[in-house]
Amino acid sequence: MSSIDFNQVAQQFTTFYYEKFDSDRTQLGNLYVSFFLYFLFILLKILTTGKRDQSMLTFESSQLQGARDIVEKLVSLPFQKVQHRVSTLDAQPASPNGDILVLVTGELLIDEETNPQRYSQCFHLLPDGNSFYVFNDIFRLNYS
Amino acid sequence: MSSIDFNQVAQQFTTFYYEKFDSDRTQLGNLYVSFFLYFLFILLKILTTGKRDQSMLTFESSQLQGARDIVEKLVSLPFQKVQHRVSTLDAQPASPNGDILVLVTGELLIDEETNPQRYSQCFHLLPDGNSFYVFNDIFRLNYS
Repeated sequence: MSSIDFNQVAQQFTTFYYEKFDSDRTQLGNLYVSFFLYFLFILLKILTTGKRDQSMLTFESSQLQGARDIVEKLVSLPFQKVQHRVSTLDAQPASPNGDILVLVTGELLIDEETNPQRYSQCFHLLPDGNSFYVFNDIFRLNYS
Repeated sequence: MSSIDFNQVAQQFTTFYYEKFDSDRTQLGNLYVSFFLYFLFILLKILTTGKRDQSMLTFESSQLQGARDIVEKLVSLPFQKVQHRVSTLDAQPASPNGDILVLVTGELLIDEETNPQRYSQCFHLLPDGNSFYVFNDIFRLNYS
């Protein structure tokens, strides 16, 4: 993992994530697929040690825990069309294991609205073999 | 660590951080003090394995690595007075070790300006005995 360029990963991930989000967000489940594996892993731990699934998405004031609820929430968002425009993207390595922290700020256009809304989104990406998956995701609209 | 309320930690940390930042930011070094220990640890690793200090602050377009540069940057910011107003604060557990991820959005007033500027800031807090310290910090102003 030491040869990974975290800025490049963050850039590629963010581009891919918003392209999928804006074109067909039913496919976003693939990016969270490891949540299912993690969930199974945690389920085994629940049976043996009592620990809970701590994976989370915060979307505005909604906090969702566990793979199934996260994917359902993203797919069920109440709009037909959405377009993300990234203004800033900053990444930092977040652990010696190869975790990456990403802060995105930008604008989004929903359905037929012409005034974009500003948003901030923080991703915590974990390495998974030669790839990465979304472990933490916090999204907030920025109201003036 | 399992009995820690991550929302409460995030709230207390953020309140304390901005109070210090707005009143006397020379004291912020204390919150990053463990960076020095981490730096010494990494220095040992540099000597033995060639790894670098990966602790980082991103402040607008500046990326700073290592304890000394981070503290110097915060102390040298070119304004006399600053006031942070938090609009949203969301936290998530970021690892089984007790890491906490915090996304803050808000407004800040600098010196004698009357129009607040919007900002987003992402903190990655690591447990350190019974306390926490700032491991990652990404700050961005949100321009319209």
